[in-house]
Amino acid sequence: MDLKRFIRDVPDFPEPGVLFRDITPLLQNAQAFRYTIEKLTERFEDSGLAAVVGIESRGFLFAAPLASNLGLPLVPVRKPGKLPAAHMRVEYALEYGTGELDIHSDALHRDTAVVIVDDLIATGGTAVAAAKLVELLGARVNALAFVVELVDLGGRKRLQDYELFSLIRYE
Amino acid sequence: MDLKRFIRDVPDFPEPGVLFRDITPLLQNAQAFRYTIEKLTERFEDSGLAAVVGIESRGFLFAAPLASNLGLPLVPVRKPGKLPAAHMRVEYALEYGTGELDIHSDALHRDTAVVIVDDLIATGGTAVAAAKLVELLGARVNALAFVVELVDLGGRKRLQDYELFSLIRYE
Repeated sequence: MDLKRFIRDVPDFPEPGVLFRDITPLLQNAQAFRYTIEKLTERFEDSGLAAVVGIESRGFLFAAPLASNLGLPLVPVRKPGKLPAAHMRVEYALEYGTGELDIHSDALHRDTAVVIVDDLIATGGTAVAAAKLVELLGARVNALAFVVELVDLGGRKRLQDYELFSLIRYE
Repeated sequence: MDLKRFIRDVPDFPEPGVLFRDITPLLQNAQAFRYTIEKLTERFEDSGLAAVVGIESRGFLFAAPLASNLGLPLVPVRKPGKLPAAHMRVEYALEYGTGELDIHSDALHRDTAVVIVDDLIATGGTAVAAAKLVELLGARVNALAFVVELVDLGGRKRLQDYELFSLIRYE
């Protein structure tokens, strides 16, 4: 299935000069959404993973079905002020500014093998921050998975220590 | 399975005097998470639904696996500034001030039967706003589903025109 057909290009969002790749048409097409989740599931079943980490909030849309299909725990990585219990925090540079991400300190046991899931990778700043959070807890990043990869923005290079899986690539 | 065992009570979050019901232990227990998704799926299969609407962002964690299991489109209802294309907006009252929720104008066809999913219902303000958005598009709210219901806060009463399903109830 050509998933790119279900990505909508929105010029000048969230600011002038940016071409936004909108995944909502993919979500809203039952066949395309199901196919996306099946492809992620196929890729990561029998991979020795012990948890799925989803990045707030569009990452949740793919991490949650993947965790459910694989029968694995789901660990949310969230924006500041959202996680109520003791947590670790990492600051990072975004495509459009700076941001922070949190993870609950009790979210992962040491040496747990995880896949980190987000909807899209651009410069990779968010994904690098999520990987740092996982490693701060002593767990291991086995792979990172994205539905959309904006290849030219170089995220893959910043994550070259990890395996990176993506379904739709824009050069 | 007694799902309440997997809800963590966090006093004074997000502000003094509030007892926060934290769902992350449920997500992080593979059996509990899987059981939750199975119960939601059982309840809504063969219900004549044509789409699942998930409320940002914790609602995504349950709406996405449900849509994936049911083979239905997934429609995100999001906070302002997140949806890139033409959208409808509804304002609703919060304890202090107001909140807003958006839906893409092309997200649902007229007369589509949907279930709205969120992690938790308290006073019901967010759920009422989501139902209004669905109806602004001419679609129909067949049911609303929540993992946690804070019964004393009266959300069910504000939503009495709809069927309301919840898995964990606090009186």
